[in-house]
Amino acid sequence: MAYRETVKVKARKAATRTKLLTSATELVGEAGFRQVQMSAVARKSGVAVGTLYKYFLSKEKLFANVFQMATEREVSHVELALQGSQSAPQRLRNALQLFAERALKNPTLAWALIAEPVDPEVDSERLIYRARYAQLFERTIEQGIAAGDLPPQNASCSSTALVGAIAESLIGPLAPKPANDNSLNQAAVINHILNFCLQGLGATAAASVRSTA
Amino acid sequence: MAYRETVKVKARKAATRTKLLTSATELVGEAGFRQVQMSAVARKSGVAVGTLYKYFLSKEKLFANVFQMATEREVSHVELALQGSQSAPQRLRNALQLFAERALKNPTLAWALIAEPVDPEVDSERLIYRARYAQLFERTIEQGIAAGDLPPQNASCSSTALVGAIAESLIGPLAPKPANDNSLNQAAVINHILNFCLQGLGATAAASVRSTA
Repeated sequence: MAYRETVKVKARKAATRTKLLTSATELVGEAGFRQVQMSAVARKSGVAVGTLYKYFLSKEKLFANVFQMATEREVSHVELALQGSQSAPQRLRNALQLFAERALKNPTLAWALIAEPVDPEVDSERLIYRARYAQLFERTIEQGIAAGDLPPQNASCSSTALVGAIAESLIGPLAPKPANDNSLNQAAVINHILNFCLQGLGATAAASVRSTA
Repeated sequence: MAYRETVKVKARKAATRTKLLTSATELVGEAGFRQVQMSAVARKSGVAVGTLYKYFLSKEKLFANVFQMATEREVSHVELALQGSQSAPQRLRNALQLFAERALKNPTLAWALIAEPVDPEVDSERLIYRARYAQLFERTIEQGIAAGDLPPQNASCSSTALVGAIAESLIGPLAPKPANDNSLNQAAVINHILNFCLQGLGATAAASVRSTA
């Protein structure tokens, strides 16, 4: 019986933890990390503030976990988009396009994850996840080189340049704007970023164009 | 007399402020922001800790000022390298090369400025300065398009992609490494990053090669 109770307790704790992280992520998606108070996370999750602090010792630790969970989700999407039988340049284009489109659909959360000035504990997570993205891109670039779809190059170096180019060029489009700013043509911006990245890799124009189809 | 004393006092205060910032920057260049204690900055500057706090109300404010001063210096170098009579792609290549070479010559300071997880007050400065770099690149890209040395493109978007690509691809080479890691061929890495960036802009191979001379 003791064993069964432990399992039950563990399951309940895991469910509460997920609820707290989901509530916090939703609040970050509304206004960024800096606007989120622990009391609001507790209220939204239907728990006492003291309970929240039992799960996450500090706001920084909660935010680091929010960052991990939200970014892990994006990494999985990118990883999936990089699989398949298409050429490496096309898979890279698909993955970068998906990344950009998902970011622009949820701009406040994406801005918080990519660019918002945050506590060092959260910022450290950024370095880890940027390396994760780079590793995924690197593997695909190597496949492209091996298949002759990309010219020989330092795949490690190119992959980090890709991560930097896509993240940095999205910061402007994602940044909070005056409500009347509707000048942004998202599809054109995404297309331009993808062209920069694919050209940077030395993908032939044919590969770049083909992949937009 | 009162006026003259005020001038003298102002000059002395400005000299002390510069000394404090220079000492702090040197300490950051040895081990990054996180290792630097206010007491060490005061000691190195030959002032009492209390005096240091009179000039900078907090460590975060001191670091934000260190960041500004050190980055302003790099921005001036880039700005200068972007001037002249050469083609825009060549000037961009020169500027990016100078940026990368200066970073790799002083890797700990460059890593602190570009990538080290820092307080939000310092991280906010990063966003400002990345926008400064992007503006400089954007102007040169526009000149390149006008002169027919670069294909038509969204210069604003390309400029941020450039900033991201160069910064992110330097993080790995700059990051603290085991002492016995001497596998990094800096010249090759820089050349690769520059090729990615120039290709990303759609500069012709001729322009890319010519500019390495």
